[in-house]
Amino acid sequence: MNHGGPPDDTVDVRWHAHAVTRADRERATGHKGCVLWFTGLSGCGKSTLANAIDQRLNARGVRSFVLDGDNVRLGLNAAPALLTERHGAEFAKRFGLGFSAQDREENIRRIGAVAELFSQAGIIALTAFISPYRCDRDAVRAVLAPGDFVEVYVKAPLAVCEGRDPKGLYKKARAGEIKGFTGIDDPYEEPLSPEIVVDSASRPPDELAAEVIAWLERAGKIAARPA
Amino acid sequence: MNHGGPPDDTVDVRWHAHAVTRADRERATGHKGCVLWFTGLSGCGKSTLANAIDQRLNARGVRSFVLDGDNVRLGLNAAPALLTERHGAEFAKRFGLGFSAQDREENIRRIGAVAELFSQAGIIALTAFISPYRCDRDAVRAVLAPGDFVEVYVKAPLAVCEGRDPKGLYKKARAGEIKGFTGIDDPYEEPLSPEIVVDSASRPPDELAAEVIAWLERAGKIAARPA
Repeated sequence: MNHGGPPDDTVDVRWHAHAVTRADRERATGHKGCVLWFTGLSGCGKSTLANAIDQRLNARGVRSFVLDGDNVRLGLNAAPALLTERHGAEFAKRFGLGFSAQDREENIRRIGAVAELFSQAGIIALTAFISPYRCDRDAVRAVLAPGDFVEVYVKAPLAVCEGRDPKGLYKKARAGEIKGFTGIDDPYEEPLSPEIVVDSASRPPDELAAEVIAWLERAGKIAARPA
Repeated sequence: MNHGGPPDDTVDVRWHAHAVTRADRERATGHKGCVLWFTGLSGCGKSTLANAIDQRLNARGVRSFVLDGDNVRLGLNAAPALLTERHGAEFAKRFGLGFSAQDREENIRRIGAVAELFSQAGIIALTAFISPYRCDRDAVRAVLAPGDFVEVYVKAPLAVCEGRDPKGLYKKARAGEIKGFTGIDDPYEEPLSPEIVVDSASRPPDELAAEVIAWLERAGKIAARPA
């Protein structure tokens, strides 16, 4: 039972394990780890905002990292087609993620688990996924340490997001070429009590980023910037 | 297709994305990201060695993090039983990881994908899993950027590992209570050309840790320590 599957390792008790704790890491860097979980409609600007904040944090020496479709959909949460060549069709069918309700649930679960590892490493993880279902977001909140899950609702009316439609996805959804598209024929469940709400329809990303940074300072996640 | 499952996000092209690149992060910290992939028999000291190195790197201000059974088996790679309450039995059966060959393959694949994300974040990820099969380790090597996969074979004779047997697992395997145990009734496939081999049977962890640190310096992953 311990030969490659989890749990698959043992610790030799005669060797002292010099584990670096999360508190050690946070003391050394002067900031806390946490997860900024951006949620909102397609086109609301989650990824743009997350990257703007990542840049500001990086410039201040705060350790942060953005998890988004660009870096999980080719690896951790790859579609079946991407896994077939290396792992075979049966494996790909079971573990590759498509678009069923169950697959979307697992997509968010894995992202939450990875964000949790980053927060344990003392890093501020910024996740940018539509994550339309309250229960999936709440499940991530539940696996994180208290206070680590910071839900950021990037709010913009559907009409604004649809007006941007950078990839033409809303157009395809309206034409019926994409089924189950959030906001069109699948619901977006607004957060009931998010830690942060930002209005991306009427204010530019720089202002929103400054707002989130100020929240992190007030919450004691990062040090206030010296005047 | 883009409502919570991957790929599930869009970028508003009218907003400029200020992405922090890996090179930016590595310039700021003065060291490279990579994956130190520790492999070897149960009881060979992978986890102890990884933690000793993590401590030394942390003391030098190098960003590193250990991935091992302790932090992945309750979250990312949880067993079915752990997923059932929150996600239901059917979901848990599909995505929860047990001990079949397929499950062990997916266990290592997910760990590799997460280690890759850490390396992209400019962090040195240290993974401590038996990972007995060459093909699984090689699959991780293949998804990482060239030079990022540093295979560390923690070598010790079976008799030494079995003599330590901190959790009594070898004893159970010999008694037939555990089936498919690496080294007993399941093979351990030695790395053919690992970047680093350390002899954990005859030398203490501090010496082995120093050896790996010296390798990282020579390879240009971290700065040489000022004399």
